[in-house]
Amino acid sequence: MSEHRNPLPTTDAVIADPRGRVVLVMRKNEPRGWALPGGFVDWGEEIGAACRREAKEETGLDFELVAQLFTYSDPRRDPRKHTISTVYACKVAAGAEPKGGDDAEEARWFAEAEVPWKELCFDHAEILRDYFRWARTGERRRM
Amino acid sequence: MSEHRNPLPTTDAVIADPRGRVVLVMRKNEPRGWALPGGFVDWGEEIGAACRREAKEETGLDFELVAQLFTYSDPRRDPRKHTISTVYACKVAAGAEPKGGDDAEEARWFAEAEVPWKELCFDHAEILRDYFRWARTGERRRM
Repeated sequence: MSEHRNPLPTTDAVIADPRGRVVLVMRKNEPRGWALPGGFVDWGEEIGAACRREAKEETGLDFELVAQLFTYSDPRRDPRKHTISTVYACKVAAGAEPKGGDDAEEARWFAEAEVPWKELCFDHAEILRDYFRWARTGERRRM
Repeated sequence: MSEHRNPLPTTDAVIADPRGRVVLVMRKNEPRGWALPGGFVDWGEEIGAACRREAKEETGLDFELVAQLFTYSDPRRDPRKHTISTVYACKVAAGAEPKGGDDAEEARWFAEAEVPWKELCFDHAEILRDYFRWARTGERRRM
């Protein structure tokens, strides 16, 4: 008998600079498009550590975790598999410049008004809307 | 080659009544002791739905999810496996009486002053301390 099948834990980082811009990465793999940096949580790894590791691989940035915002688990959020993503608000110092690496072809800053909403993969538009509301009001996503 | 090994997503419910008491269950299986009701998230299942399903099996209660509080992922939180738990604050109407079922031998109400802190399994003492602070102040666990 195979073991019980579980959703796969992942993490995504919303990295902001002091001007409130956020980093998005252009994915190298399918589905192509812009996305938050992030990836899978390893066995034995705390989610915050996975967030720092994965987002650094894709952006080159060292950053600070500010708050754990929400864990997204809609089974349709990723067309490939059932993944669960724990999202962190993160910050970097002024002047930090992202540089695409690993699974990211490109990584760059976007002000809220510049976010390519229609070109965001997965449920990252929803996550980013929740993030900007939290950044303005301190209110997290509701049930 | 085996697939990448991932931590296992779980969920726990802090179910409160209008007096602020919370439900704990006495586990039937090892490790024995008091715990929050909860369990594994199934493939294809949203975490909130898993929370309602698992906690109902163990307490008999129908309840409302009030807020998603935090996702705990320290690899040492469960001595058996690396599990990640997304914790919800939940509420029931006055007069609801929990009844142990499934993996729970017993389920009952505890006021904060009655919680058997030393007999709590896993990291549930930490989760409950975070919960009571949130219930008093609205502040979630910090990074």
